[in-house]
Amino acid sequence: MEAYLDNSATTFVLPEVKDICVRTMTMDFGNPSSLHKKGMEAEQYVRVARETIAGTLKVDPKEITFTSGGTESNNLALIGGAMAHRRTGKHIITTQIEHSSVANPVKFLEKEGFRVTYLPVSPEGVVDRQALLDALDEDTSLVSIMQVNNEIGALEPVAELGRLVHEKNPDILFHVDAIQSYGKFIIRPRRENIDLLSVSGHKIHGPKGSGFLYVRSSARILPQILGGGQQQGMRSGTENVPAIAGLGVAAGAMYQNYEEHVEKLFSLRERLVAGLSGMEGVTINGPKGREGAPHIVSASFEGIRAEVLLHALEEREIYVSSGSACSSNHPVYSATLTAIGVRKDLLDCTVRFSLSIFNTEAQIDYTLDVLNELVPKLSRYRRR
Amino acid sequence: MEAYLDNSATTFVLPEVKDICVRTMTMDFGNPSSLHKKGMEAEQYVRVARETIAGTLKVDPKEITFTSGGTESNNLALIGGAMAHRRTGKHIITTQIEHSSVANPVKFLEKEGFRVTYLPVSPEGVVDRQALLDALDEDTSLVSIMQVNNEIGALEPVAELGRLVHEKNPDILFHVDAIQSYGKFIIRPRRENIDLLSVSGHKIHGPKGSGFLYVRSSARILPQILGGGQQQGMRSGTENVPAIAGLGVAAGAMYQNYEEHVEKLFSLRERLVAGLSGMEGVTINGPKGREGAPHIVSASFEGIRAEVLLHALEEREIYVSSGSACSSNHPVYSATLTAIGVRKDLLDCTVRFSLSIFNTEAQIDYTLDVLNELVPKLSRYRRR
Repeated sequence: MEAYLDNSATTFVLPEVKDICVRTMTMDFGNPSSLHKKGMEAEQYVRVARETIAGTLKVDPKEITFTSGGTESNNLALIGGAMAHRRTGKHIITTQIEHSSVANPVKFLEKEGFRVTYLPVSPEGVVDRQALLDALDEDTSLVSIMQVNNEIGALEPVAELGRLVHEKNPDILFHVDAIQSYGKFIIRPRRENIDLLSVSGHKIHGPKGSGFLYVRSSARILPQILGGGQQQGMRSGTENVPAIAGLGVAAGAMYQNYEEHVEKLFSLRERLVAGLSGMEGVTINGPKGREGAPHIVSASFEGIRAEVLLHALEEREIYVSSGSACSSNHPVYSATLTAIGVRKDLLDCTVRFSLSIFNTEAQIDYTLDVLNELVPKLSRYRRR
Repeated sequence: MEAYLDNSATTFVLPEVKDICVRTMTMDFGNPSSLHKKGMEAEQYVRVARETIAGTLKVDPKEITFTSGGTESNNLALIGGAMAHRRTGKHIITTQIEHSSVANPVKFLEKEGFRVTYLPVSPEGVVDRQALLDALDEDTSLVSIMQVNNEIGALEPVAELGRLVHEKNPDILFHVDAIQSYGKFIIRPRRENIDLLSVSGHKIHGPKGSGFLYVRSSARILPQILGGGQQQGMRSGTENVPAIAGLGVAAGAMYQNYEEHVEKLFSLRERLVAGLSGMEGVTINGPKGREGAPHIVSASFEGIRAEVLLHALEEREIYVSSGSACSSNHPVYSATLTAIGVRKDLLDCTVRFSLSIFNTEAQIDYTLDVLNELVPKLSRYRRR
């Protein structure tokens, strides 16, 4: 049996996503900027995708800017947002547990003279509201907080944090990295005081190279990729029609039967957490129940290096991630695990399981069986 | 008969490109950053594409950075190049006929305090060597010149210009926008003193959302999209494996039977130019023979607005472009046509025909027949 439990790293594309990608690569392959029929056809695919996505968030289609993915969306929000307001404010607030595609643009801005506050989180990975209130000041121009942490599945109360930010000053841009939450949560940017929201396609069975940034109509950010002025000048470059059309289809699919999907994910997660909790030397990091995301489980295996476990599981066709797969080849300790206070000896013994609605109970049971067999064996060789 | 003659706007993807995209979207869909087998498989597709592309340029695979397309490649080269050297030089040289994805980043840099020289071109669209020599000074850090102009097909002597730049100062970055030339010309960045070279996939029957920037190993530029540190930190974000794999296949296909392809394009172009030249009131802009690119023909139709002609042709299933399709919805006069001295009354009467190796002589003849029928009719209503 194969069990791909690395869906927060990437997912396969849905058959209907593949179909629309093929159609727009081969038949309806026009450039939306072309004035003739083939251009119009292509533009129509983009328009439909934009409307579908706007519908999932209950926002105006004009507020959706397509990008090449989550990383570009985060860069556009952070750098484009901070730079647009650099004359009125140079203080940025973010958290200690952001993904590198937020953390590194923030570091860049720090070098450019911005002041940055990194909010601490609880042992469950939840941002400290009081710390946010204390950090907000007259110079604050941008607050960036992820909705779901990619390593442990912690859920941040973004609606409440957004309210606090805008109560302090409605002009502060509130950015939410929703790359691990879109499709798993109902998000209402307008009601939740969200000005900017980043989404990636390939985490929700859409195409790689697809993503978008929601930009509230009242929010001002500077475009980061300049050229032909596509997408109202917000992101130049020929629209990637297959990726955009595919993203639209994937987004629609995720929010169709939404409640059923989420229930299935939570139930798979609970099955996995229950099994893991019964194993000796295993600790679940972050949320244990339904207070977090429905699809991410972080577990530390005392005395077993994550890479060793990962490869042992791989031999049984079980695919998981050590730490966050999106920044591999960086053997640095995870900022998230450190921030929530994971014991130092467990930092490199931590594995992430991430689920999709296409996983099955049988796969979870198989994974638990294999772990029950492997863990005692591997921990025999544990470092002391 | 259908005749798609707008291949410089975009092209359909090759069947073998589609196949590898489908495979990497559905079966081999891993994230190259994942440490398990599915990650390795995905990484392998990226590696093969990088090697194929490096082979077409005779450069080191490490010198290829994949981007989301030509516009991002140009932005990375211009902004990343200029910013990396802003402490040692703040003078940029470019031409009056660059694509907006070069011209607009240059304008941005101008606002950021860089000084810019815009080189004039001859009536055939060729950059003035002496003007380049006169412009180079101690403060010059970056020179950006396109190889083939996207509107008229003028071919710039980039090897010679690169030599002049590096004779003045080998530290000056020489960037070539090869978006309309890659696949149609043999390019040897090392021999031709090219430090940075931009390429787009969807102009050569590769996927939209694919492209790369060649960055000579000795050239220093700053990454523009920050995050997980993929691609040696030069361009963060999960690699778009389907787009990259597809681009590799397309690049390989373009340079297989290269001479035959180019001969076919030139012969189609000559057929089209000969037919157009015989029509009353029609002027060919830019190169007429083999001194230019093999696939672009710019023609002005006296007294017939480009849009009128475009739509009349569209009704006969002939697809062309008015000016440059990559920046439509901008009813501004073309900088290129203005720079080569096209008469003012012809500026909005100019149409671009752009060819692919999949066009046929029959399509050219059909197009000429339709034009012979339409032009006298439409010019009867010409404005006086």
